[in-house]
Amino acid sequence: MESKKVSESITVMNELVLPNDTNVFGNLMGGRLMYWMDIAAAMTASKHCNAPCMTASVDNISFKNPIKLGNVVHIEAKITRAFHTSMEIHLMVWGEDNLHQYRYESNEAYFTFVALDPNNKPRLVPAVLPETEQEKALYDGALRRRQLRLILSGKMKPNDANELKAFLNS
Amino acid sequence: MESKKVSESITVMNELVLPNDTNVFGNLMGGRLMYWMDIAAAMTASKHCNAPCMTASVDNISFKNPIKLGNVVHIEAKITRAFHTSMEIHLMVWGEDNLHQYRYESNEAYFTFVALDPNNKPRLVPAVLPETEQEKALYDGALRRRQLRLILSGKMKPNDANELKAFLNS
Amino acid sequence: MESKKVSESITVMNELVLPNDTNVFGNLMGGRLMYWMDIAAAMTASKHCNAPCMTASVDNISFKNPIKLGNVVHIEAKITRAFHTSMEIHLMVWGEDNLHQYRYESNEAYFTFVALDPNNKPRLVPAVLPETEQEKALYDGALRRRQLRLILSGKMKPNDANELKAFLNS
Amino acid sequence: MESKKVSESITVMNELVLPNDTNVFGNLMGGRLMYWMDIAAAMTASKHCNAPCMTASVDNISFKNPIKLGNVVHIEAKITRAFHTSMEIHLMVWGEDNLHQYRYESNEAYFTFVALDPNNKPRLVPAVLPETEQEKALYDGALRRRQLRLILSGKMKPNDANELKAFLNS
Amino acid sequence: MESKKVSESITVMNELVLPNDTNVFGNLMGGRLMYWMDIAAAMTASKHCNAPCMTASVDNISFKNPIKLGNVVHIEAKITRAFHTSMEIHLMVWGEDNLHQYRYESNEAYFTFVALDPNNKPRLVPAVLPETEQEKALYDGALRRRQLRLILSGKMKPNDANELKAFLNS
Amino acid sequence: MESKKVSESITVMNELVLPNDTNVFGNLMGGRLMYWMDIAAAMTASKHCNAPCMTASVDNISFKNPIKLGNVVHIEAKITRAFHTSMEIHLMVWGEDNLHQYRYESNEAYFTFVALDPNNKPRLVPAVLPETEQEKALYDGALRRRQLRLILSGKMKPNDANELKAFLNS
Repeated sequence: MESKKVSESITVMNELVLPNDTNVFGNLMGGRLMYWMDIAAAMTASKHCNAPCMTASVDNISFKNPIKLGNVVHIEAKITRAFHTSMEIHLMVWGEDNLHQYRYESNEAYFTFVALDPNNKPRLVPAVLPETEQEKALYDGALRRRQLRLILSGKMKPNDANELKAFLNS
Repeated sequence: MESKKVSESITVMNELVLPNDTNVFGNLMGGRLMYWMDIAAAMTASKHCNAPCMTASVDNISFKNPIKLGNVVHIEAKITRAFHTSMEIHLMVWGEDNLHQYRYESNEAYFTFVALDPNNKPRLVPAVLPETEQEKALYDGALRRRQLRLILSGKMKPNDANELKAFLNS
Repeated sequence: MESKKVSESITVMNELVLPNDTNVFGNLMGGRLMYWMDIAAAMTASKHCNAPCMTASVDNISFKNPIKLGNVVHIEAKITRAFHTSMEIHLMVWGEDNLHQYRYESNEAYFTFVALDPNNKPRLVPAVLPETEQEKALYDGALRRRQLRLILSGKMKPNDANELKAFLNS
Repeated sequence: MESKKVSESITVMNELVLPNDTNVFGNLMGGRLMYWMDIAAAMTASKHCNAPCMTASVDNISFKNPIKLGNVVHIEAKITRAFHTSMEIHLMVWGEDNLHQYRYESNEAYFTFVALDPNNKPRLVPAVLPETEQEKALYDGALRRRQLRLILSGKMKPNDANELKAFLNS
Repeated sequence: MESKKVSESITVMNELVLPNDTNVFGNLMGGRLMYWMDIAAAMTASKHCNAPCMTASVDNISFKNPIKLGNVVHIEAKITRAFHTSMEIHLMVWGEDNLHQYRYESNEAYFTFVALDPNNKPRLVPAVLPETEQEKALYDGALRRRQLRLILSGKMKPNDANELKAFLNS
Repeated sequence: MESKKVSESITVMNELVLPNDTNVFGNLMGGRLMYWMDIAAAMTASKHCNAPCMTASVDNISFKNPIKLGNVVHIEAKITRAFHTSMEIHLMVWGEDNLHQYRYESNEAYFTFVALDPNNKPRLVPAVLPETEQEKALYDGALRRRQLRLILSGKMKPNDANELKAFLNS
């Protein structure tokens, strides 16, 4: 199974914030944004491995700037690294106010997906070939984030998470 | 400002998985589930502080069992602890297959909300009074989860996170 | 087939009134509310008989207090009585304004559901065991409401409706 | 205030049953149909009185034939009679299977609407001029249906419902 | 295969403009209107040929008067002419402001549909029998519009479009 | 008012075809696709002129290959030319089947938008600077397409459409 470049499966999504997407402040609801992020990430995962994929986990998301009614939500999803049958997808989200020519960061997140075979069993996925500096940094950090995920879901003991411990003590 | 009990703001939500909520496997999409979880959590936050609230962050979510088309999504949202102007909400999600009388855990998550005053500035929220054993355990763990959130969003240095370090070394 | 308690199939639903759910007054549209009530009632019916169910009829609904944009719709559905292959479900609907700590009754209704077997033919459903005073009162009134339903749909002659006649002459 | 003919405010609605409108049987959900019926009836009420209107009540609805996925829902809403500030609207619903050239009755219902003035207080509506035999029959039956509604919502004593009693004893 | 009258497959659709259908001006979005027009036209095509149909093309649409939030969208779809396996549908769209008793033309359009057999291959459709003056004019113009469509999609050379050339030189 | 490059306002949209977007063939409905195309084009128009925009017209669209359930809809919208207060937007639509690594053209279209000032009157928009060969070809063809639009909407006499006549006689 041949490795694939990050650039081969990047997904760009642009959505318009409509009235029903907003809370009482006239801002995009966090849940509606996560709905779009999940679909953008699923497209990238599916494009990388050419198989149907299922959301396995979502890392800590911190919402910075609210996106206002009528603004554009701009999402970029790119794969960072593959682990046998799973893939980590990095998401960047911006809001864009076309009238005031203003673009602002909304949040950044990591979603994990599992590829399934026709019997709905996990299947191997191609490795990831990072090329740019940013892609390599995301690739390197993926191990540490995976350890945190395994600890938080009770599948790894904190003592075994070497990359994570090195990071927390840095 | 008087403290409030956890039980005063619990929110129960039951939703039916319809065709448009599902992926190619006929299972509830992760993004659609997070949309409902965000609304359930927002209802609890808003009921606790009697003010409009905004999603601030979402902790790591791990999706265990997929919920199938036609099944019921059962969500329970309860507040765990308040921090001046923010509140942590704990969510439990089950799937229910009424035909086979089968109820299965889907996931567990923590959402954080901020309460806003009429000028959209953060405002103080009432403290939380945990009563049951489970409520007290969730209350105690909230400090540690908050430290992890602050580290992950770059607002705290790992070395200052005493509760978290104690947990990782336990 | 064993009888089942009312409490075994109660469904609680909480929904947020979003912009697209409202009419020009900024109030929840009656049709949107009935959509949610139908789903809540279907969940209770299906949970009672562990079979797929279909809406058979809806009794007179009177809308008392409109529910406003941004408020919470709180629905409670419980079974009152079973008749061979059909079930009557009682629904209570409240609006909740979390900011003003105000909860108000919106309406009360009865839906009837039919349970179907794998060939889409009506199938027997378990009898209902009422326990509380309110459950017993709802159980007793079910016969009279059923007679009214049968008369209104032309399936029973008014003269044969003894319970209903006794009620109208009381 | 001049009377208006029934024909001046008739509303015809045709909707396609899409996947998300259906239950596990592949049939239109009762709640989704009531959503459309409410909108069709509101259009007729609003057209009759040239004012915004609010759903006040819905009479007993009995669902006869389920409407299948891909079929057309055909709704006709016409006013039957006006009572000072409220209007009764009669609805006929058919399903249409274009492939098999088959049209079948689904249900028949009565919705009541109230007209509101700019301060959201009930306002007078024009009287209804029935012209055809069917319109006159619907006009005449409106008094009896109104008495049943008032009794069922506890606003009238059964003994005062002369038209209804005559009907039940007929 | 017997010819069919235009009047046998006319479709009338009435929709309410809700908040999520509108742009920042509070007017119905063009794309949302085309969604409804496509469904209305598909119903007419399918009713004419009693077979499932697929949108083949949409002619130039010019949006005249915007339809406002809360107004009614009134669509009338009628077949103009059939060409072996395809049908041209004419659509008229009005906006209706019930409060001000004001009805205004929004746009006029032509959609083309293809009928498919159970193997998803194009199948023959019945010819159209125009009866009124307007129906005959629409029938006659259909040839010219078809030539324009074929030229614009590169399937016909401009020089072969006799009806269209005569029209442009008139 | 300074001219702007085409590349400054390109919009890329990726959408997943969900069950409710499909017709009885399991293919994306034409109307749903036009809804997305309208939003993508509006984003480009609004970004070019930094003002709110309204759909003015849609040119002939020919649907080539149907996009299947579960596939990705890929839309690219770019401005071709500006005319005082209006802008022509070119749209390319592809379907993508990630499982079979297959990307196919679905359709190509031109939408026209008008920019509005705060009083909802048309306002001037910046001129377009085409850079690539394709952008220049689209820029040149815009005059001819505009003449066809004006003729089809009855605002120009065929004899005055010099560019169009030259094209039809070529």
